[in-house]
Amino acid sequence: LFRSDAAVRVGLTQAQTEVLMKSLQQMFAAHPQANTHTDSLAEAVSHIDMCAQFCTSCADACLAEPTVDELTYCIRLNLDCADVCAATSRVLARQSRPDPSLTRELLAVCATACRVCAEECERHAVMHEHCRICAEHCRRCVEVCERAMVNTAIVV
Amino acid sequence: LFRSDAAVRVGLTQAQTEVLMKSLQQMFAAHPQANTHTDSLAEAVSHIDMCAQFCTSCADACLAEPTVDELTYCIRLNLDCADVCAATSRVLARQSRPDPSLTRELLAVCATACRVCAEECERHAVMHEHCRICAEHCRRCVEVCERAMVNTAIVV
Amino acid sequence: LFRSDAAVRVGLTQAQTEVLMKSLQQMFAAHPQANTHTDSLAEAVSHIDMCAQFCTSCADACLAEPTVDELTYCIRLNLDCADVCAATSRVLARQSRPDPSLTRELLAVCATACRVCAEECERHAVMHEHCRICAEHCRRCVEVCERAMVNTAIVV
Amino acid sequence: LFRSDAAVRVGLTQAQTEVLMKSLQQMFAAHPQANTHTDSLAEAVSHIDMCAQFCTSCADACLAEPTVDELTYCIRLNLDCADVCAATSRVLARQSRPDPSLTRELLAVCATACRVCAEECERHAVMHEHCRICAEHCRRCVEVCERAMVNTAIVV
Repeated sequence: LFRSDAAVRVGLTQAQTEVLMKSLQQMFAAHPQANTHTDSLAEAVSHIDMCAQFCTSCADACLAEPTVDELTYCIRLNLDCADVCAATSRVLARQSRPDPSLTRELLAVCATACRVCAEECERHAVMHEHCRICAEHCRRCVEVCERAMVNTAIVV
Repeated sequence: LFRSDAAVRVGLTQAQTEVLMKSLQQMFAAHPQANTHTDSLAEAVSHIDMCAQFCTSCADACLAEPTVDELTYCIRLNLDCADVCAATSRVLARQSRPDPSLTRELLAVCATACRVCAEECERHAVMHEHCRICAEHCRRCVEVCERAMVNTAIVV
Repeated sequence: LFRSDAAVRVGLTQAQTEVLMKSLQQMFAAHPQANTHTDSLAEAVSHIDMCAQFCTSCADACLAEPTVDELTYCIRLNLDCADVCAATSRVLARQSRPDPSLTRELLAVCATACRVCAEECERHAVMHEHCRICAEHCRRCVEVCERAMVNTAIVV
Repeated sequence: LFRSDAAVRVGLTQAQTEVLMKSLQQMFAAHPQANTHTDSLAEAVSHIDMCAQFCTSCADACLAEPTVDELTYCIRLNLDCADVCAATSRVLARQSRPDPSLTRELLAVCATACRVCAEECERHAVMHEHCRICAEHCRRCVEVCERAMVNTAIVV
């Protein structure tokens, strides 16, 4: 099947991607009870949310490897991490009177999910580029969660 | 409670945001059965996935408005759109032998969810900046879904 | 590690399970804009919602099989079906002024996801009991979705 | 629009509901690395998973109340609880080598989400039957999570 490059270029350009992120920051800033650190919040939410996509993609890439039988624990932890990150990013995105205990505990479990997933992905990082990238992103996500727990002003 | 600006700056910088997006493209490219248009795929996935966050945030912002009783239909459609976008972005992120019918139908329903949500948000856009931003992003998301349906090479 | 049977019996009894289902029906009936067929709605929602759990469990069981390399397409479709069913059950659970087009299209794509998943699971049903059970539930879910599309009074 | 009772009776009967629950237990038992307490696991998973539906429905019912402006905190916590329960039930449904720390922490945060939601729903229970039912189910869900944390044999 022939397709021209022009025909398939439907994605956003880099410039549009920047607009996307700035747009999310403006969205958080437009909230009637806006957090005083909406830029940090937007970045934290997008980072945790994207982690769910990295993990979903890594699980699927592992599934497509000829050595899938050696990657089943990695897939399992990828799926767990995707689910926990997705829930966490949604709760954080809600700025109207969050419950501080719930937010803090959720950030902690999100950090755990990302750490456990990163540790297993790192074991396959030399063999599989997708595991290396996923581990790297999960490690950054652990940091994002831990800093947000310390500077709770960002999220509650 | 005193906190220095430095202490709360935990988010990613713009440079790091670019790294994040490039990282997702590399993740998709590292898949053993990588789509030939991973850049477009990465942008489509991130756009649809982010739409779930815009809608989650808009629903929560509407909830915090003094005129919440005029925004209940908007909130309902925001929640629907967030759920449909979240499911769609996950299915699209899986590159290993997707089912073409499922992918196409899901993109269609995602476009519908975004269109219906955009139409209602637009009715409140003059009054509420968060509705304006959400409508704008939903409209772009309709385009992303429709183009991906035409150029199915991007997603299947 | 020794554990007494009494210690681990933390689940609900069959009687409690019945209470659970009746409870969901009462929940739907207590809605200010309650659908006239809340019993049917509750059953449809719980059936579609549970389908997500059957598929999540089947994907995980496939992952634990020694022949996982023959089950990767099944896993992929299980994960897709789980995501689509989860989104669909949430949208259906909202009774306040649903959008008829969105509801109908979503039921259609949910039926597709369940059908595609059932077809693949059936190919492994003789070998794997979990695939047999999952296929059976997915088939019932296709029926639930198709009937709800015909009798839209149940869901909109 | 006329519709006969027969035409709309598309839901499952009580007998079929029992089949559904027994079916989920059989699904968990058919896992190659099946937990020794699959009945308890099936009940825990279905209870936590259903809690997401109770909360989704309560949020939507609150939204439809004329006094919605007094119920915004309840709606917010309902949405949080739904997201956390959905993620928790998915992680628990995976029996292949779960991470004990992640499972335990996730059950703890799920208990917190349910407790916080129950407390707020209880404040509206006299006025709104949906809040009373939701609070009741959330309270039971707290128990399910806490017992599963003690008797970890059920979930790991």
